[in-house]
Amino acid sequence: MKIQTGGQYIESLRKIRPKIYYKGKRIEDVTRHPATAPHVRAAAMTYALVNDAEHRDLATATSHLTGHSISRFTHVHQNVEDLIKKIKLLRVLGQKTGTCFQRCVGFDGINAVYSVAFETDRQYGTHHLDRFKDWLNYIQEENLMVVGAMTDPKGDRSKPPADQKDPDQYVRIVQRRPDGIVVRGAKLHMTGAVNSHEILVMPTTAMDKRSQDYAVAFAIPVDAPGITMIFGRQANDSRKDNRERMDVGNPSFGAVGGEAVIVFEDVFIPRERVFMDGQFDFTGTLVYRFAAHHRANYGACKTGLMDILIGAVTYLAQVQGTLKVAHTRDKITEMIHLCETLYGCSIACSAEGQPTPSGAYMVNTMLANVCKQNVTRFHFEVARLALDIAGGFIATLPSQFDLESKEIGHLIRKYFSGVEGIPTEHRIKIARLIEAMTGGTALVESMHGAGSPQAQRIMILREGDLEKKMKLAKVLLGIYS
Amino acid sequence: MKIQTGGQYIESLRKIRPKIYYKGKRIEDVTRHPATAPHVRAAAMTYALVNDAEHRDLATATSHLTGHSISRFTHVHQNVEDLIKKIKLLRVLGQKTGTCFQRCVGFDGINAVYSVAFETDRQYGTHHLDRFKDWLNYIQEENLMVVGAMTDPKGDRSKPPADQKDPDQYVRIVQRRPDGIVVRGAKLHMTGAVNSHEILVMPTTAMDKRSQDYAVAFAIPVDAPGITMIFGRQANDSRKDNRERMDVGNPSFGAVGGEAVIVFEDVFIPRERVFMDGQFDFTGTLVYRFAAHHRANYGACKTGLMDILIGAVTYLAQVQGTLKVAHTRDKITEMIHLCETLYGCSIACSAEGQPTPSGAYMVNTMLANVCKQNVTRFHFEVARLALDIAGGFIATLPSQFDLESKEIGHLIRKYFSGVEGIPTEHRIKIARLIEAMTGGTALVESMHGAGSPQAQRIMILREGDLEKKMKLAKVLLGIYS
Amino acid sequence: MKIQTGGQYIESLRKIRPKIYYKGKRIEDVTRHPATAPHVRAAAMTYALVNDAEHRDLATATSHLTGHSISRFTHVHQNVEDLIKKIKLLRVLGQKTGTCFQRCVGFDGINAVYSVAFETDRQYGTHHLDRFKDWLNYIQEENLMVVGAMTDPKGDRSKPPADQKDPDQYVRIVQRRPDGIVVRGAKLHMTGAVNSHEILVMPTTAMDKRSQDYAVAFAIPVDAPGITMIFGRQANDSRKDNRERMDVGNPSFGAVGGEAVIVFEDVFIPRERVFMDGQFDFTGTLVYRFAAHHRANYGACKTGLMDILIGAVTYLAQVQGTLKVAHTRDKITEMIHLCETLYGCSIACSAEGQPTPSGAYMVNTMLANVCKQNVTRFHFEVARLALDIAGGFIATLPSQFDLESKEIGHLIRKYFSGVEGIPTEHRIKIARLIEAMTGGTALVESMHGAGSPQAQRIMILREGDLEKKMKLAKVLLGIYS
Amino acid sequence: MKIQTGGQYIESLRKIRPKIYYKGKRIEDVTRHPATAPHVRAAAMTYALVNDAEHRDLATATSHLTGHSISRFTHVHQNVEDLIKKIKLLRVLGQKTGTCFQRCVGFDGINAVYSVAFETDRQYGTHHLDRFKDWLNYIQEENLMVVGAMTDPKGDRSKPPADQKDPDQYVRIVQRRPDGIVVRGAKLHMTGAVNSHEILVMPTTAMDKRSQDYAVAFAIPVDAPGITMIFGRQANDSRKDNRERMDVGNPSFGAVGGEAVIVFEDVFIPRERVFMDGQFDFTGTLVYRFAAHHRANYGACKTGLMDILIGAVTYLAQVQGTLKVAHTRDKITEMIHLCETLYGCSIACSAEGQPTPSGAYMVNTMLANVCKQNVTRFHFEVARLALDIAGGFIATLPSQFDLESKEIGHLIRKYFSGVEGIPTEHRIKIARLIEAMTGGTALVESMHGAGSPQAQRIMILREGDLEKKMKLAKVLLGIYS
Repeated sequence: MKIQTGGQYIESLRKIRPKIYYKGKRIEDVTRHPATAPHVRAAAMTYALVNDAEHRDLATATSHLTGHSISRFTHVHQNVEDLIKKIKLLRVLGQKTGTCFQRCVGFDGINAVYSVAFETDRQYGTHHLDRFKDWLNYIQEENLMVVGAMTDPKGDRSKPPADQKDPDQYVRIVQRRPDGIVVRGAKLHMTGAVNSHEILVMPTTAMDKRSQDYAVAFAIPVDAPGITMIFGRQANDSRKDNRERMDVGNPSFGAVGGEAVIVFEDVFIPRERVFMDGQFDFTGTLVYRFAAHHRANYGACKTGLMDILIGAVTYLAQVQGTLKVAHTRDKITEMIHLCETLYGCSIACSAEGQPTPSGAYMVNTMLANVCKQNVTRFHFEVARLALDIAGGFIATLPSQFDLESKEIGHLIRKYFSGVEGIPTEHRIKIARLIEAMTGGTALVESMHGAGSPQAQRIMILREGDLEKKMKLAKVLLGIYS
Repeated sequence: MKIQTGGQYIESLRKIRPKIYYKGKRIEDVTRHPATAPHVRAAAMTYALVNDAEHRDLATATSHLTGHSISRFTHVHQNVEDLIKKIKLLRVLGQKTGTCFQRCVGFDGINAVYSVAFETDRQYGTHHLDRFKDWLNYIQEENLMVVGAMTDPKGDRSKPPADQKDPDQYVRIVQRRPDGIVVRGAKLHMTGAVNSHEILVMPTTAMDKRSQDYAVAFAIPVDAPGITMIFGRQANDSRKDNRERMDVGNPSFGAVGGEAVIVFEDVFIPRERVFMDGQFDFTGTLVYRFAAHHRANYGACKTGLMDILIGAVTYLAQVQGTLKVAHTRDKITEMIHLCETLYGCSIACSAEGQPTPSGAYMVNTMLANVCKQNVTRFHFEVARLALDIAGGFIATLPSQFDLESKEIGHLIRKYFSGVEGIPTEHRIKIARLIEAMTGGTALVESMHGAGSPQAQRIMILREGDLEKKMKLAKVLLGIYS
Repeated sequence: MKIQTGGQYIESLRKIRPKIYYKGKRIEDVTRHPATAPHVRAAAMTYALVNDAEHRDLATATSHLTGHSISRFTHVHQNVEDLIKKIKLLRVLGQKTGTCFQRCVGFDGINAVYSVAFETDRQYGTHHLDRFKDWLNYIQEENLMVVGAMTDPKGDRSKPPADQKDPDQYVRIVQRRPDGIVVRGAKLHMTGAVNSHEILVMPTTAMDKRSQDYAVAFAIPVDAPGITMIFGRQANDSRKDNRERMDVGNPSFGAVGGEAVIVFEDVFIPRERVFMDGQFDFTGTLVYRFAAHHRANYGACKTGLMDILIGAVTYLAQVQGTLKVAHTRDKITEMIHLCETLYGCSIACSAEGQPTPSGAYMVNTMLANVCKQNVTRFHFEVARLALDIAGGFIATLPSQFDLESKEIGHLIRKYFSGVEGIPTEHRIKIARLIEAMTGGTALVESMHGAGSPQAQRIMILREGDLEKKMKLAKVLLGIYS
Repeated sequence: MKIQTGGQYIESLRKIRPKIYYKGKRIEDVTRHPATAPHVRAAAMTYALVNDAEHRDLATATSHLTGHSISRFTHVHQNVEDLIKKIKLLRVLGQKTGTCFQRCVGFDGINAVYSVAFETDRQYGTHHLDRFKDWLNYIQEENLMVVGAMTDPKGDRSKPPADQKDPDQYVRIVQRRPDGIVVRGAKLHMTGAVNSHEILVMPTTAMDKRSQDYAVAFAIPVDAPGITMIFGRQANDSRKDNRERMDVGNPSFGAVGGEAVIVFEDVFIPRERVFMDGQFDFTGTLVYRFAAHHRANYGACKTGLMDILIGAVTYLAQVQGTLKVAHTRDKITEMIHLCETLYGCSIACSAEGQPTPSGAYMVNTMLANVCKQNVTRFHFEVARLALDIAGGFIATLPSQFDLESKEIGHLIRKYFSGVEGIPTEHRIKIARLIEAMTGGTALVESMHGAGSPQAQRIMILREGDLEKKMKLAKVLLGIYS
């Protein structure tokens, strides 16, 4: 691990110059720009945790390629224990940042491409896995951050890639050269993209023969020529831009993953960085493996966030004198219950993991889909309960400028006080944190990240084995036809 | 009606100078300040609708005091038809503004204070009703906007008013003079306060004998000496402050009611403006009447908003090519179902309305509480469904500055397009509207406005008549003990 | 009203001899057979209520045909007040019987056929309405009970009537004669059929030209030649058959409507009893009118049942010493809340009723569908909460034979006692009532009666006016294309 | 394992003569009495599975006492793998019986008493563990079925054991003798009691010093002098009693566990069978260990049942021609989703298991409580969805006697047919199975078995570590007080 601390990670980002736009202007230094710096700090926590004795075992792993100690985020899962440690690692990081720390998306991409490269090689005699191992070794040794890039714009969603009016609505190979390929298109909602070192591109859906040029996977540095990123806006992003430390809610870390659009305008990819090129019959498997790994995460990192949110409303109830009220306690109980149900699903899909032909371990896909499906419901309910307990002032609280005002600051202090002995500032800070963790962007990400709710339902039905279940019922009834 | 148009209403606000702060600075003109102007425009719609032939019947009423045609928002309900027309009026205004138009809070305050003044007079020989009629006549003739002010800060919620360390945590009479009273305290979450003409203050909860000085109701102009308002911040308020017309979502109208704190620093209230002074045994009734009227509204105005939200996601699904997908249609069906359930509750509590001793009509209180309780659940679910249909880009969409940028605007246009023939701008506008209508402030207001969820549950149990229900069961079983 | 009391109704049933089977044997006298008598008693309550001074206003109406005072169950609604009175009548009857009293199905059939007969006459110059009025006058004067018969067997549900392998899967005209028609087929789930005097048959779904012979409506006495009924079995029906008065739960009245199959084996219908004959383009309207009226009822009668169930669990909690526990009270609150939400929907769809061209009033169809849709969810939840409060002994309680046993009766009495002073028998009776009201048949009926859940969703979407809603959103955004 | 087959198990029951009453009469032979035989057959499956090569690994374990191969149901968990195998074993048995096979309650009792006996010995120098091992060795070698007996009648639930008017409302020691103790009281809802060999009694709740005589655990044969059992009645039990094989739904196996009351009328327990005697400070631990193990099971056996139920409705939808309809498929998806969420919780609490001081493994108690809490909700919802898909005829279907009738059997056959080629009998059988699996008793047991919903909520809150969560929130905000 060349990059060994959060500080070194931040330094490393200052050495590269990806082309990033935000609110119409270019960001020169993501580590210092107020819109991106909080996200950089969250990702830096994935580096910092390695140095935390309590969590080092979760934060690191032993490379199956080299035997070296590496960041777990660059590891290929070798057994069930690896899968479970990942879950525990993500929950801890959620508890320490209160937000997305972004690095699991590349982690899951690595695991998905690795296992599929093995299978395309076996089927077609390609050499994807060797190339991929070379690249992965580089990532592990340098300890780089990788953004896994899957979601295409899709244009008219009633049509497949090959039938779009604009053929670039899915990333595609526009030219094949002896030394590599040239790609065009875009990837949306790219978590951690602006503060990653490398992009790992994967197809977004199962392709058919007509869409062969869309069956492409590769890795490329974020500052390669032809790449442009556009950083998305978030709820209340200007509070962050203006460094309103109290009103932003989470003072140090960003909201969700700092998602960006990545545009590829005829970007050249060297051959040794290409891990799929036309093997359309493996696109479905690749998408599904990535999705399953990623869906498993949501009962981990989000429960870390919920731990904070539960703590925040508990403390707020204490400040407001309502913690002993029966309905408050019941709602806190429900928040814990929902949170732990999600965590249970993540643990379960890991505990039931199985090896792929490559040896890399996969989570149980049914349970991973079930996990994410529950997240799309429970996170909203947990947020709703938090807001119920917190009270209406989450929607009407004056700004920190009013609190700091000479003319009216004392009025805020007086009329937003709670029980004796706790400063009004604490109540306001905790309220802003709750506001930030329950508002728009945070919940939308929970719903659509790692696939929209319907994507999970399709897989749940597909894996439900209705034939077997019908047979169980028939056997019980003595029906044998 | 002296003020007959939206324009005249706006003009009228320019003539008064309430002391209002926002983000640490004073607002000089609420009609032009970008933070408040959208809320002024929403309230102006309540004036403008009078001139709309289609809705004039809903928007006006005949004063039972004078027989004059008045704004319905200043009317005392005379029958069930009035109650139902109010519901229909609010839904129409919700459909036209997509937000809170604020004026029902004073409307409900008028109806609550009117009926209680009659009863305190009858019980104690006071002259509250005559004073109130004089004031109401003035409001009706001038067609003024009134903010009903109820919610006190409450400090330590485990203690009643008289036991607070700071006695000002509930508005109270600090001095009684022959010509009036002097009051101190604050009211929080005051919808429409900064663009109202008058404040109608009511107690926030049932008081006992020890809290006699807190049993006070009165009316006072917003710019009376000693009154200070602090305008609360909202989700994404800086988009509004910066006049980012596209990203703000709802380009013309504000988000919810533009709530403010109103502080009373020893404000003198002339005797003829005092409608309750120490009659603590009527505080419970007053609070409950106001609350019931107000809770009935939420199945009206919010369903107007939901109509827009349903329309927005339907259009977005059309743009994205997903409108014919079964699960999209099912989710839209569910949104309509929940919306109409709320509307049904509002209609029902009105249809079951009954006269109070004063002749003023009250909604059925059980059904009004049930209505609001459902709002605290269904609005979140409707929002969740909208976000499910809309997709993840609600959380990651670049800003309008990127769309307008020379360097990258074409990329946004290309990669956020939908089906052929509809400009990308439309898709973005509709996405921003959905973002605004489903984010933090909008939902928190739905939950806590007109009383937090638990406030309704207490009333539902209290009015559930368990004795009668037990008897029904026992009779069926022949148990007569 | 010739039949003026419950007793006279029962007498009247003894004079007719419909062909009824139950558990493989013929029932000779429905008023005395233990399987049917409880249902007869429930229906008798609709007659008895006329003599109850408190409810006479609800239970009777003035015939618009004759001006005579008639049972409301034979009335054609003339205004909104009629619609609301119907709702209140049904709730009272639910509270008095704790079950289905069956008579609203004919009531709704009368109202649906009446208004459609007017419209087919207007369109095609037929004389259905005059015939119908003659028949209705007879029903009103005699005060007969009518079973509205709609649901056909449907065979393979993926195919319309005309494509079924067995053409009899929907009731159809097999012969047209000058003096009448001959019909064949069956109607399933016929509530109150075995103790009605007359059957009013309607088509089950919208038909097209190919299904013209299925577009048929008529009335016929229950004992007409060729008619056979088969009485369905219910949860725990043998407790009723064996007259186990305590264990049956509801000792006097049946569970739901005592549903039966009615088979028509080439039954002749005289011309004057035919109210639709081939007007397939009106079948959709007829079905929809009946369905809407019927769906409106479910927030009325079922809330009457829920009143009893809430009373039962409240009493049981009292007996068990758990009534003051916070979670018990909260669950009771929730039961009331759900119950009143349903009631609100029934009131609302009635309050928003409108006249049809015939003058007969229709409920608001959107709100009626919303009402029933909620019933399909909330009745289960109310039952679940009741069972939660009641405790596990609902599933394990020994039989009344054990209680009555000399050898072990004292053990039951000792170990199933509750707080001091209340006999164990009371606890057991109330437990059995809860068991009966929350078990299988009761809930299935709530779900599928008046149309399965999906039937309501189809109508909710159809009536949702998405075009208008999209326009509201676009206007707000200034999108005019 | 002396008893090696289901047949031997049944034989073994014929050799003992416990005193059992049902419907007021004594049952002489539980293996032949129609009320109990189906439950005997379900329990026999736990013996039979040992001989099934596919599942032998799940069905057996290696005794840590003797190294012998034993039935897993008599095993003390030695590691996480044991805990997970238990879950998988229970799901398989659920899939094979469609009901409760009863044997896990003794299994969990064994594990709970074992670990607590170790701890009481360590604390007080008692010799409970040695005695317990002797008894357990006997159970393992003979392969006996044990009923774990915990739930006391409780009388007035607002009062603890020592304050009850009748001191016998909780099982208690009425006499201490040198050679043993004499106990009095009763245990309710005893799953599998009537067809077990031994009873393992445990206290029902945490006791204090005043309730020392209630702090008792022991084992005793079911036919010991002074023991009387009363078999509870269930939904539709007379169909079973009358051997109506089709209408009973599940033709071979019982509904839930065939619960019984066990009364102890001054029963003598030899000293070597006493495993707790007055160590009141360990009652809470014992109850909680048993409860946690037992709660873990519900996401296993119940998901086996749900597999059958999902299969049943899928097949029924196929028969009715509705399987391809979008909403049917969506509801089946939801059923699978809920089912797998429960399974995930069971797997998770096992995967996160930890050793107790005795070496016996415990499940993760938070996740076990979460598992059961979800069961109390999801089983009802799964049942509701099944009934939605199945249709209204579940509540109205004529009896099998009608189907078998010469006079009307052909009408049933004709009018209850579905798609071509599948006999009507199949449709009826599957409908009856769905009726049985979704009706009263089945769901009540899911709710209250292993502790009522509130019992889990209390533990979830207690284990939620709110202090830690508050600290996480404060650290994020830089609040250090």
